[in-house]
Amino acid sequence: MATLEDIAKVAHVSKMTVSRAINHPELVRDELKTSIFSAMHELNYRPNVAAKALVNNKTQVIKFFVLEDIDITEPYYMKLLVGIAEYLAKYQYSLQLMTDQHLDIGASDGYIITGMRDEDYDWIKRLELPVVLFGENRWRLDFVDTNNEMGTQMATRYALEQGYDRVVFIGIDVKEPFEYSRENGYIQVMQENQRMPEIHRFANHSHLAMDFIEATWSRITPNTCFICASDRLAFGIQKGILQMSPEIATDYGVIGFDGVFLDQVATPQLTTVEQPMYELGEACAELLLRKIKDNYYPLEERLLQPKLKIGGSTRKK
Amino acid sequence: MATLEDIAKVAHVSKMTVSRAINHPELVRDELKTSIFSAMHELNYRPNVAAKALVNNKTQVIKFFVLEDIDITEPYYMKLLVGIAEYLAKYQYSLQLMTDQHLDIGASDGYIITGMRDEDYDWIKRLELPVVLFGENRWRLDFVDTNNEMGTQMATRYALEQGYDRVVFIGIDVKEPFEYSRENGYIQVMQENQRMPEIHRFANHSHLAMDFIEATWSRITPNTCFICASDRLAFGIQKGILQMSPEIATDYGVIGFDGVFLDQVATPQLTTVEQPMYELGEACAELLLRKIKDNYYPLEERLLQPKLKIGGSTRKK
Repeated sequence: MATLEDIAKVAHVSKMTVSRAINHPELVRDELKTSIFSAMHELNYRPNVAAKALVNNKTQVIKFFVLEDIDITEPYYMKLLVGIAEYLAKYQYSLQLMTDQHLDIGASDGYIITGMRDEDYDWIKRLELPVVLFGENRWRLDFVDTNNEMGTQMATRYALEQGYDRVVFIGIDVKEPFEYSRENGYIQVMQENQRMPEIHRFANHSHLAMDFIEATWSRITPNTCFICASDRLAFGIQKGILQMSPEIATDYGVIGFDGVFLDQVATPQLTTVEQPMYELGEACAELLLRKIKDNYYPLEERLLQPKLKIGGSTRKK
Repeated sequence: MATLEDIAKVAHVSKMTVSRAINHPELVRDELKTSIFSAMHELNYRPNVAAKALVNNKTQVIKFFVLEDIDITEPYYMKLLVGIAEYLAKYQYSLQLMTDQHLDIGASDGYIITGMRDEDYDWIKRLELPVVLFGENRWRLDFVDTNNEMGTQMATRYALEQGYDRVVFIGIDVKEPFEYSRENGYIQVMQENQRMPEIHRFANHSHLAMDFIEATWSRITPNTCFICASDRLAFGIQKGILQMSPEIATDYGVIGFDGVFLDQVATPQLTTVEQPMYELGEACAELLLRKIKDNYYPLEERLLQPKLKIGGSTRKK
C-alpha cells in the first residue's frame, strides 16, 4: 500500500499536510484537500477509519433518522440525503439511515433527524449525543431549514407584481412551525400591500386541493393566484383549475413550494419556491460535525435562502 | 454502561447469545435478535463498532454509489436506499452514499453500485472488494434486480385479458439489459397469443411520449393499450391521450413500470408493474454481506418478483 510520503510527493505537499487532511480535514484548505484526495485516489491509498475512530474515541458514524412515512416523502429526501452523505464522506464519516428508532442500536457520534412529530420529542431529548434537526422546531434544538417565510414572501410578491386581483393562500393543515412561517410570509406581504389575506388549509394531498377547486369553482373569480404551501397542493389546485378552464396561465395562477420533482411533472410546470435540498443536507452535516468537535456550541437555527423558480403555471407579464 | 450480562438478563438469554447477536448476528435467529436488540435499546447499551471492525480487520462500512443523475431518479432510489441501510444497520454496518467516484477515499468492506454506464465498468472492475450491482448487467458481476421480463409479461397478459385489440410497447431508447428484458417479456406474450408486436422507443421523458401520441393520434385506434417500460413514459402517454380523448379508461389503456410515486400522482392513477424497492435494497445488502463473509462466492444474479398494481388507467372488465 502507498505511504503518506508517496501521497505527499504526488500531491506536492508535505507529509504533515497529508496527515492533517486525513485526521483534521477541517484545518486544510479545500484546494489542497482536493489534490491530496486525488493523489490518494490515484495511489489507491485508503485510510482505515476504524483505527482513527478508536484513537479519537469516536465512531465516525452519523445516524440519520427519517421519521415520516417514506412512501409519501421519498422524492423530497433523496437530494437532502446525498448532500448529507457527500459532506460526511469528505470527513471520513459514514451514515446510518433509519426510519425506526427501535433499530437505533450501534454507537454513533451524533444524529440528524427529520420528520419529527411531537411524540418523538421525548426520545430525542434523551439522546446523549449532538443532534441537528432538519426542519424548524419549537423545542430549542439546533436545526437547518429553508427560510420558509422568505419563500412565501417571494411567491406572494411575485403574484402581486404579475397583477393578479386576488391572491389566496392554500396551507397545509398541521400545527407545525414551518407552516406558520409559510403563512406568515404570505400575510406580511398581503398586509404591506393593503390586501386582505384569504387562507384555506388541507391535509397535504393533491386530491383535496383538486376537490376544493371543483366545489368552490363558482366563487373563484378569474385573475386569482393560489400561493400553496407545497407542490403537492399546487399540483391538485392546478389539476382542478385545468378541469374547469384550460386558460390557466392567463386567467389563474398557481405557485407551489418545494421544487422537488413534482413541479416538473406538472403540465404546465409549476412556478414554485425551490428549496436548496442538497445545500440543506450539507448544512445539516456541517453543523453536526461542528457540534461533535466542540463540546459547547450555542443553539443554531440556520435558514437557507430559497429561490423562486418560474414555470408555466403563472402569467408572464 | 450496561454489561452483556445485564442485557442477557433482560432478554432472558445467555451472555454468549448476546455476544453472538452483536458479533455474528447471522448465527442468531431473528426472534432472539429482536428481543436482544430491544433489551440493548432499553438499557442504552451501544456496542462500539470501531473496536469490532479493528478486531475483524474490517471497516463495517459499505459504500453505495448512485452513478445516475440524482435529479432525474430521486423518487426511485429512496426506498431502495432505506432497504439497504436498515438491513446493514442490523449487522452494525453503516453506509457511505456517493454520487461521484472521485470521492471514494476512505476504506470500506464492499460496494453496492447502481446507474452504471459502460464507461464505469473500468473503474468497477478495478475495485478489489466485493461488489453487488443494483440492475441487470452484461459484465458477469453479481446483481439484484426486479424480474423485468416477468413484469412486462404480467402487464401484457393483463392487457390481452382485458380485451384490448391492439397492445403496443413503449420502450426506453437505451441499449441496456433491463430494457431488453422488458421488451422480451412483451414480445413473448404477444407471440404466445399470435399477436404482432409493435414497439416504439423514446428517451425516458414523459413529454416525448406525450408528443408521440399527439403526432400519431390519427393512427391510434380506440381499444389500444400501451405497455410502457417506465411510469415516466406511461405518464406522458396518458397525458397525451387525455388531451385527445377524456374516455381513457374505457377506450384506451396505459400500463407503466416502476410503481414509485409517479403512478400515484397521475390522474387516473396508473396501472403499473411495481418493483419491490425496499426488498431489492435488502437483497443487495444481504448478498453483499454474504460475499464479504465468504472469500469465494459464486456469481449470483438475483431477480425479485414484481407485482401488477391495478389503477384507473386500464379498463376494469
